Amino acid sequence: MTDSYLNFANSPVGGKLADVLGLPKPMVLERYKAGQPVIKGSVLLGGGTNAPLLETLAGIFKRIGAQTVAHAQLPQWTPIANQAGLMSGRWGVDGQPGEKVKALVFDATGLVDSSESEALYQFFHDAARSVLPCGRVVILGRPPELCRTPRQATIQRALEGLSRSLAKELKKAIAVQLVYVAEGAEGQLESTLRFLLSPRSAYVSAQVVRVGAPVGEGAAPADWSKPLAGKKVLVTGASRGIGASIAEVMAQEGATVICLDIPQAQASLDEVAAKIGGSTIALDIGAADAPQLLVDAAKADGGWDVVVHNAGITRDKTIANMKEHFWQMVVNVNLSTQERINDALVESGALKAGGRIVCVSSISGIAGNLGQTNYALSKAGVVGMVQSTAPIFAKKGITINAVAPGFIETQMTAAVPFAIREAGRRMNSMSQGGLPQDVAQAIAWFASPASNGLTGNVVRVCGQSLIGA
Amino acid sequence: MTDSYLNFANSPVGGKLADVLGLPKPMVLERYKAGQPVIKGSVLLGGGTNAPLLETLAGIFKRIGAQTVAHAQLPQWTPIANQAGLMSGRWGVDGQPGEKVKALVFDATGLVDSSESEALYQFFHDAARSVLPCGRVVILGRPPELCRTPRQATIQRALEGLSRSLAKELKKAIAVQLVYVAEGAEGQLESTLRFLLSPRSAYVSAQVVRVGAPVGEGAAPADWSKPLAGKKVLVTGASRGIGASIAEVMAQEGATVICLDIPQAQASLDEVAAKIGGSTIALDIGAADAPQLLVDAAKADGGWDVVVHNAGITRDKTIANMKEHFWQMVVNVNLSTQERINDALVESGALKAGGRIVCVSSISGIAGNLGQTNYALSKAGVVGMVQSTAPIFAKKGITINAVAPGFIETQMTAAVPFAIREAGRRMNSMSQGGLPQDVAQAIAWFASPASNGLTGNVVRVCGQSLIGA
Repeated sequence: MTDSYLNFANSPVGGKLADVLGLPKPMVLERYKAGQPVIKGSVLLGGGTNAPLLETLAGIFKRIGAQTVAHAQLPQWTPIANQAGLMSGRWGVDGQPGEKVKALVFDATGLVDSSESEALYQFFHDAARSVLPCGRVVILGRPPELCRTPRQATIQRALEGLSRSLAKELKKAIAVQLVYVAEGAEGQLESTLRFLLSPRSAYVSAQVVRVGAPVGEGAAPADWSKPLAGKKVLVTGASRGIGASIAEVMAQEGATVICLDIPQAQASLDEVAAKIGGSTIALDIGAADAPQLLVDAAKADGGWDVVVHNAGITRDKTIANMKEHFWQMVVNVNLSTQERINDALVESGALKAGGRIVCVSSISGIAGNLGQTNYALSKAGVVGMVQSTAPIFAKKGITINAVAPGFIETQMTAAVPFAIREAGRRMNSMSQGGLPQDVAQAIAWFASPASNGLTGNVVRVCGQSLIGA
Repeated sequence: MTDSYLNFANSPVGGKLADVLGLPKPMVLERYKAGQPVIKGSVLLGGGTNAPLLETLAGIFKRIGAQTVAHAQLPQWTPIANQAGLMSGRWGVDGQPGEKVKALVFDATGLVDSSESEALYQFFHDAARSVLPCGRVVILGRPPELCRTPRQATIQRALEGLSRSLAKELKKAIAVQLVYVAEGAEGQLESTLRFLLSPRSAYVSAQVVRVGAPVGEGAAPADWSKPLAGKKVLVTGASRGIGASIAEVMAQEGATVICLDIPQAQASLDEVAAKIGGSTIALDIGAADAPQLLVDAAKADGGWDVVVHNAGITRDKTIANMKEHFWQMVVNVNLSTQERINDALVESGALKAGGRIVCVSSISGIAGNLGQTNYALSKAGVVGMVQSTAPIFAKKGITINAVAPGFIETQMTAAVPFAIREAGRRMNSMSQGGLPQDVAQAIAWFASPASNGLTGNVVRVCGQSLIGA
C-alpha cells in the first residue's frame, strides 16, 4: 500500500541520491480534492491553420474559469476568446517562450493531410519546456474511421504516435491524451475536457478517447462538482480496495450509492456504506439468479442510473496447472455474469434511460499475462462486451465504457513479491503505481450525465505503462 | 549485429549458469530455409462443440502435407480428415496427453457465448506442455466487429486475452497467434496458416490477423515455395539492413526485384541487386517528382505487382531540441511520400490489379517513444494510411498491409548503447531481437498472390515485445 521509494525520492536527501545514481524520480501526483478548480494555472492553445474547435473551447474554458493564452500560430484565438467573455493573451514574444502553463491544448481537428503536420511541431517544440509539473496536454482530433478522405484519416491517426511519444518525453508527471471528437459532437466534449485537464486524471496518460454523437439526452450538471446529484449508483465489489474507493468517489460526486459484495464481506461492506450514507446488497453476483435479484432490487429502488461492474476475481496459475473450476469461476464472475446482468438491467428498464454502465477491464486483458489465461480472457472479453453492446444500449440512451487499470496500490498488489511489485510500479511514465481513487475518478467521468458522448471507450488508468500489446 | 548473450545462453556452460542465476534463456529460433516443409512435426487440433472450419482445415493440412491428431473434444475430426485424404489419429488416451506436437490449432469460430469458454480451457490445459520448442499455436476466431450478437462478439474478442497470455506462458520460443476469419473467407485462410505454422514466422507472436473477403482474384501459387514467380516487386531502401533482406527474400520467393535507394547508396544497392539478379533505381523518394518518376518506371517495366515501402529514416531528438527540417524530413520520407506514391501508382494503374502494397510501421508508431515524436507520428500515420486506403484500393483489387518491427538486429540497432540494446533484446517473449529476414518473411506473406484475404492488417514482428500502447 505504501510506495516507500516514492517517499524516499521526494525527500531532500533521497532526491539527490536518486539524481546521482540515475534512478527514476517519481513525483507525488497532484490529486483532486473537493472544491478545487478544474485547473490551477493557465492553458496554452495551439492549432492548425484551420482550427474548427476554437469556439467550442472558448465556451468550455469560460465555464471552467480557466485562464488561456494563445501560441503565435493561433492569432484568431483572441477575438474568439473575447467573444466568449474570456480573458486571454498571446503567449511569448518575438519567438521567445512565454509564461509557464498548466496545460497545452492543440486543436488538430482541422488537419487534413500529413504535409500539414508542421503546425504540431511548431507548437510542441516551442511549448514542451513550458509545462508545469503534473501538467496536462490534450490533442484534439477527428476519429480516423469517420474522416472524409484517406489523407485526413492518416494524419488524424498519426496523432496517436505523437501523443504517446510526448507522454513519454515530457516527464514531470505531465499527462498527454488524444481526444477524437466526431464532427457534430463538439457539444459532448466538456465533461471529457474537464476530466483530462484536472487532477482527477492524475494517473491517466497516453490514452485515446472518442467523443461521439450524443447517446440519449445529455445534461450539463447544475453543479459540476456534484454531477451525480440525485443519481443512484450500484457499485459491485464495494467492500474494499478499488471498489470502496469507487463508492466513496461516487458519493462525493453527489450520488446515492448501493454497495454490493458477497455475503462473506458484509461487515466491511456495511462500514463502507455507513461512511457514505449508502445502502448495501450482499449477493454473489456469480449466482444464476443474481441478474433477476438485481432487477428486482433496482425496481424496488425506483430504478438505477449507474452500474459499476467493479467486482472481479483472480485465480492465477499457468493453464497447464489450472483447475477447471478456477477457469470457470473467473470467466463467470468477471465476464459472463456481467453480460447477463447488463442485459437484464437494460431490457427490464431497471437501469433507466440515460443510464451508464462502467466496467473494469485490465492491462492483463489488453496485453495478456503469464499465469492469467482465465483472467486475461475475461478482461479482454469485457472490452468486447463494451464495444459490442455500446450501439445496442445506445438505442435506450445508455452508455457503456470501461477503465483498464495498470498497477494500482491495493491490498492485492501489496501481497505481490517485492521485485515484481517494484517493476510494476516503475515501468510506466509516472514511475509509480496508481491509487484506487485514480480508477474511481475515471469511472466517475464515464458515469457523469454530461458524458453522453462517451460510449464504447476503453481507457487505461496506468500512468502510460510500458506494457502493452 | 551479434547477440553474444544468445550464443552464451545456448552453450553447455552458459546454459547451466543462466539456470542458476535465473537469467533469461533465449532459444535459437528455427528459421525457414528453402525447400523445407511448412511444419516439421504434427498438428494437434481442438475446437468448440461447433467447429465450422474443420473441413477448410483438413483441405489445407492435406495440401501442406501435415500430420494431424485430434484432441478428445474433437471426435468429428477423424472422418473429416479421412474424407480429405489426410492421415489422422486421436491424441492421448484415457485423459493422458499424447505425443509431443509442433503446433496446436484451435477452431474457436463456433463459440457464440462466454459460457462456452471451457472448451478452450480443456484443450490448452491438456496440450500446453506438449508443444515442441519453436512450436506454433493458432487460435481461429470470427472478427468481433462482424459478429451477429454481442455475446458472440464478446467471446470472440476475449480470445485476444487468452492468446496473448499463452504467448507469454508457453515459452520455448513458441509463437501464439489469433486469426479472425470472416464468414465466407475460409478460402482465403491458407496463405496465412502456412505462414504462421512455419519457421517463416519465427519472430511473430501474440498477433491478431484478420482474414476477410477476397480482394480481387486470388490465386493459389503453382508452387508454394515460389509464390512470387513472375511478379515484379519494388523494394525501397533496399541497399542494406532490413531492405536488403526483403529484396533477397522476395527473389528467393521467385520475384524479379527492383531495388531502390538514394543515389548516395548506389554502390551497395548495385551489390544487392547483382546478388539476386534484380534491377536498381537510384532515387530520393522524398523528392516532389518521385511519384511520377516511379509511375513512369513501372509503366516502362510493364507494370509492377508489389510495392514494399521499406525506406524510412530517423532523426531522433526530444521535440524541444528538434530542428524543424528534421521533423519535416522524417514525416515526408516515412509518410507523406508514401501516400503520394501509393496514390500515383494505384490511380495510374502502374501497380497492377491484384497488386500488393506492404508498408513498414514500427513499435514506436504504436507505443510512442521518447525522442521520436517525428518518427512515431510518421509510423502511426502508416497505420492510418493502411487502414484508410485499404477499402479504396480494394476496389482495384489491391491490398495494403503493414508490418511493425520491434527490436531487429541491424547496423542501426548495433549502434545503440549497450544497456538500451540489451533491454530491447530481452524485453519480449523470445528474450532476443529479431533478424531482418523475420521482417522480410512477414512482408513476403502479405505480398503473396494467395494473400488476397489480407488487407488493412498491421502485424508486429517483435517476439511479443513487452512494450505496447
